Amino acid sequence: MQLLDGKLCSEKIRKEIKKEVEAIVAKGGRPPHLAAVLVGNDGASENYVAFKVKDCAEVGFDSTTIRLKDTISEQELLNKINELNNDEKIDGFIVQLPIPKHINESNIILAIDSKKDVDGFCPENVGNLALGLPTYISATPNGIMELLRRYDIETEGKHCVVLGRSNIVGTPIAVLMSRNSTPGNATVTIAHSRTANLKELCLSADILIVAIGKTEFVTADMVKGGAVVIDVGQTRVPDDSKKAGFRNVGDVDFENVKEKCSYITYVTGGVGPMTRASLLQNTLKAYQRG
Amino acid sequence: MQLLDGKLCSEKIRKEIKKEVEAIVAKGGRPPHLAAVLVGNDGASENYVAFKVKDCAEVGFDSTTIRLKDTISEQELLNKINELNNDEKIDGFIVQLPIPKHINESNIILAIDSKKDVDGFCPENVGNLALGLPTYISATPNGIMELLRRYDIETEGKHCVVLGRSNIVGTPIAVLMSRNSTPGNATVTIAHSRTANLKELCLSADILIVAIGKTEFVTADMVKGGAVVIDVGQTRVPDDSKKAGFRNVGDVDFENVKEKCSYITYVTGGVGPMTRASLLQNTLKAYQRG
Repeated sequence: MQLLDGKLCSEKIRKEIKKEVEAIVAKGGRPPHLAAVLVGNDGASENYVAFKVKDCAEVGFDSTTIRLKDTISEQELLNKINELNNDEKIDGFIVQLPIPKHINESNIILAIDSKKDVDGFCPENVGNLALGLPTYISATPNGIMELLRRYDIETEGKHCVVLGRSNIVGTPIAVLMSRNSTPGNATVTIAHSRTANLKELCLSADILIVAIGKTEFVTADMVKGGAVVIDVGQTRVPDDSKKAGFRNVGDVDFENVKEKCSYITYVTGGVGPMTRASLLQNTLKAYQRG
Repeated sequence: MQLLDGKLCSEKIRKEIKKEVEAIVAKGGRPPHLAAVLVGNDGASENYVAFKVKDCAEVGFDSTTIRLKDTISEQELLNKINELNNDEKIDGFIVQLPIPKHINESNIILAIDSKKDVDGFCPENVGNLALGLPTYISATPNGIMELLRRYDIETEGKHCVVLGRSNIVGTPIAVLMSRNSTPGNATVTIAHSRTANLKELCLSADILIVAIGKTEFVTADMVKGGAVVIDVGQTRVPDDSKKAGFRNVGDVDFENVKEKCSYITYVTGGVGPMTRASLLQNTLKAYQRG
């Protein structure tokens, strides 16, 4: 079994980006600039945004965090997005999800200029992905593809089972893995809560990508010997033995599954850092597009 | 075995649309208006456009066919598209594909205003489909979903195998069938030219949707007893015994496969008429959106 080391891989990506930024600045250019909109004080969201700011600093990007109260109206948030759309000094921005329930998430995503939508959530970018056109591929699917690419994992003709059909992970990764590309060219099955014979299906997977948000859902008896297992899940489970009071648990029973795999990701240092690196890649792309 | 009668189904849809148009006109409104751009003199394309014009007349839509020489430049075609985008009397329009090779097809599709893109080919509409947002679903996948809906075919938890991963049929129908909807909620496998063990995979399908453009590719030994088989293929094969000099052949060996199926479409009167009806549905939607 070999661990797919997303931490190591993402460090390489960050170094590559840092080099590009240094070249830009050396030529007198301004560095790329990412903005993050944070509505309210959700603990996990605070953390995610803090990581993004830290990542930007590390590669030499400028970053701006826009903090808004959770009592903000939808119109006020839309106004802020419009401002960012028109701010020439901001190359790309994200609205950290989830946002408070009184605001329609879809309206917010639709308001983001597709050229600045570095999360790749808006319809035009999702459509470009499905059509194989240049786009911002949303961070998690992009990170998974990058991990497969950098570990040179054979995907052509393999059976890839994707557990989960979400807009931001399951569906786009299924499309990407089926595409005539490298990585890609896999026979892809999209499975979900209504899937029958899930165990049997998982056992037929050469590559198993799990993004359902159920802790340790995939057990060793569901995994074929020699399979590649990518665990996207990351659920906070209370744990008094940890300083933070919780630990992150994946969708895969790592300890028992790992022995059967050729490659596997761990809940920390796996897909997470790759997701973070992808946002930097998209921001650089947004800068280069001008 | 029951035939999925796309001809009958599409007649019902056309009657429903006709009724809506009559109501619009009775209230003093103008009828919906579809334009078709035809570049060059390809025989099949001429036919397709002629059918679309005929369909419009039948339901009471206005229609305009814009014929352009195959020597037209890309810029001239883009200018024409821009004109149609801004023509308030045209609700939706299509550019009949294929277009001459010296014109970049992607540039043409990207130039169509998504609000008038009744073929549902442009990134914003493809993305809306993937995100489950209101959109124009491209005509063939929409027609297949409508056929399954109107025959009340159970899809939830079924294994649906899609042969073909094209932008206009395979990929969108795979996404639609996997969605949490009715029809939908199927476990969907996207298969293609690089798929290994294709026969075994097809044999596991409860619903088999074939869109690869290879005549009679799916044979009886590839189909599970009781399966639902949807044949999207339609290839012209020379046939002197026919007045037209050819006959249409599907991707499925209908004569031998039909006995094993619960439901099946035939190459004529199957998916084709449903595709045509879908374009009318999309045009009506474009009119209603204003």
